[in-house]
Amino acid sequence: MTAGDSKKYAELYQQTLLNDVIPFWLKHGLDHEHGGIITCLDRDGSVLDTDKSVWFQGRAGWMFATLYNTIERRPEWLEAARSCIEFSRQHCFAPNGKMYFSVTREGRPLRMRRYVFSESFAAIAYAAYAKAAGDARAAADAVKAFETYLHYSFTPGIMEPKGEPTRPMKGIGAHMIGIVTAQELRATLGEITISGRTCTEWIDHSIAEIEQDFLKPEHEALMEVVGPNGEIIDHHDGRTLNPGHAIECAWFVMHEGKLRNDRRLIQLGCTILDWMWARGWDKEFGGLFYFRDLRGLPVQEYWHDMKFWWPHNEATIATLLAHELTCEAKYARWHQLVHDWSFKHFADPEFGEWFGYLHRDGSVSSHAKGTMYKGPFHLPRMLWYGGHCQTFAAERGRREDDIGVRSGT
Amino acid sequence: MTAGDSKKYAELYQQTLLNDVIPFWLKHGLDHEHGGIITCLDRDGSVLDTDKSVWFQGRAGWMFATLYNTIERRPEWLEAARSCIEFSRQHCFAPNGKMYFSVTREGRPLRMRRYVFSESFAAIAYAAYAKAAGDARAAADAVKAFETYLHYSFTPGIMEPKGEPTRPMKGIGAHMIGIVTAQELRATLGEITISGRTCTEWIDHSIAEIEQDFLKPEHEALMEVVGPNGEIIDHHDGRTLNPGHAIECAWFVMHEGKLRNDRRLIQLGCTILDWMWARGWDKEFGGLFYFRDLRGLPVQEYWHDMKFWWPHNEATIATLLAHELTCEAKYARWHQLVHDWSFKHFADPEFGEWFGYLHRDGSVSSHAKGTMYKGPFHLPRMLWYGGHCQTFAAERGRREDDIGVRSGT
Repeated sequence: MTAGDSKKYAELYQQTLLNDVIPFWLKHGLDHEHGGIITCLDRDGSVLDTDKSVWFQGRAGWMFATLYNTIERRPEWLEAARSCIEFSRQHCFAPNGKMYFSVTREGRPLRMRRYVFSESFAAIAYAAYAKAAGDARAAADAVKAFETYLHYSFTPGIMEPKGEPTRPMKGIGAHMIGIVTAQELRATLGEITISGRTCTEWIDHSIAEIEQDFLKPEHEALMEVVGPNGEIIDHHDGRTLNPGHAIECAWFVMHEGKLRNDRRLIQLGCTILDWMWARGWDKEFGGLFYFRDLRGLPVQEYWHDMKFWWPHNEATIATLLAHELTCEAKYARWHQLVHDWSFKHFADPEFGEWFGYLHRDGSVSSHAKGTMYKGPFHLPRMLWYGGHCQTFAAERGRREDDIGVRSGT
Repeated sequence: MTAGDSKKYAELYQQTLLNDVIPFWLKHGLDHEHGGIITCLDRDGSVLDTDKSVWFQGRAGWMFATLYNTIERRPEWLEAARSCIEFSRQHCFAPNGKMYFSVTREGRPLRMRRYVFSESFAAIAYAAYAKAAGDARAAADAVKAFETYLHYSFTPGIMEPKGEPTRPMKGIGAHMIGIVTAQELRATLGEITISGRTCTEWIDHSIAEIEQDFLKPEHEALMEVVGPNGEIIDHHDGRTLNPGHAIECAWFVMHEGKLRNDRRLIQLGCTILDWMWARGWDKEFGGLFYFRDLRGLPVQEYWHDMKFWWPHNEATIATLLAHELTCEAKYARWHQLVHDWSFKHFADPEFGEWFGYLHRDGSVSSHAKGTMYKGPFHLPRMLWYGGHCQTFAAERGRREDDIGVRSGT
């Protein structure tokens, strides 16, 4: 990838972000009556379901506040962030302090789940908004939400288990989200201490656990779930790999390596990317499979070979970042592959934004633009990171010539 | 459909049942070491996962015992039924009397779920085995399992709700399974009284509730979930229709109409079939969609347009039965459509049995022959019912000339 290519991609991403994706959600998603954001939208932006995702009050709030913090101080972005964050504060907490998964348009509770990702997304939203609006209460709320997240995720016996004690398992998700949440809190609130560790210490803690228990060099794989001591669980659940998820993890680690100028972390992220790209990329139809089996056996989940938008967003970031950090030619090739396939199949030139759910062959399975799981997050985060990460890194004092370059392949 | 066609289908179904499907599961699924059945099998029958489905200890036990009761007294079928039923009795109950959803190969508990379908399948297995083996204890166990099913399904406030009280919903599944379980207990144990109602009264109760609250003539649809008084819930969950499930319900009702020589019930079943066939059949690629939206909007579930084996099994029975009961030509046409599409796309002439999960276009998505949800049930039940239902009906004193014939179309 030449410097000219890099610039071309960065410009395309920023233009798509500012002229297509963000306007789509501001126009169709924001709820001017009850506040917050509605994400269940049809192809043209019309509302399919008024129920609100608690994840997305946080994710969208974070995205809008981050645009305000890092691109331009547009009042409409700050107001959109404020609306999501106020809705989240007022309507998304159960009496016990845990957050719901979904609420009605008006904010009445619909569903509580065992896990605490609502809290992690609220934490990054509150933190980014605290910086954007200079709102000290939002900073305190961010800390509190991350404390709740850490408490439920990492205190043994607190989170209601999915299964019986016969076969204990732990997932990589809690560590991945722990890393990126701590990275965001550190970026907006500074190196604060939460639940006994600094943000950087939480990041180190989770990277160490991922490396020790989830990374399997003998299989060239990053596992999604393992036993308490990293044991491979040779059953359907235990063998199921999620290449897009692992590649997202890869760039969280690379990003940390970039900020710290730590070659070992960069190498670790690249290794995860290499292994999981090899397992996830569909050589026949292009695009990334959703699930793969560790041993190449059939996966139990029905939709295992569908192409979802978000693994492609994460792989776009990961390959771009890997190339930037190593200059290896293969990462430029992979980036072009996933970029071209994604813009060809997911983008909707007619109504804007991206489709989310394609068949294996790239044909559209659902023309919805949003669901309880798809809203302004993975795609705009990719466009923002891809269009903006140089500046972002520069803010943290990165010196490009210190990073070092792995031998090109 | 001529009498010759009917006979041809019946013979094909019985031959496929006895020479292909049942031998596949007897050979590859039965666990001669720990008892019971393993259903997670690859295309060639090799084991993908040794974990056991509690549903399938019951479903397979019922199927093997039913073959013994209705086709031929083969000792291997009785022994297979006994093995599943003993495993179920010994390893599948929690201390509180509720049954697990999955256990290890050895029978240690893996997962408990909110709902009680494990109990309904155990009930029909125990009942059929009681008849096959003359085992009075199994008859008592069947009654007890159905009591547990009824208690959790229909006592308000007993089953842990999935959501908050903001938007109460009820599902059609508990009523459908209630009907077919009561039908089976009545067929094997006689017209017994359970939890205050006879089997027939439980059937009447559930058919009445389905007709009153789930059937929507103004939409020509049978709903999957509604509000407590049959209100349509105009959100993703509430609008999601499951044509295969509704068509299964249609034939449960038709079967009841056939046994009672009740034209109103037969008409009700045919109406459900008519409406849900119109919504479910894929006119472009053939086969039955998994989910459809009441208003034709995008469905939230990713795999909504996949073709699963079991809706095709249920539609094969329903169209065959509807034709038998009404002589309407359209049902013979629909039967031929679904029969031909299914045998062309799901059947695996190389290794036997059927694939379970196809893409919309009929190509194979997973070549597994079994999962925690796919084992010897829907397909062999269809082959058994289709190959054997005349005899089955005759046992109950049906007089064909009393049923009456609707005008052909």
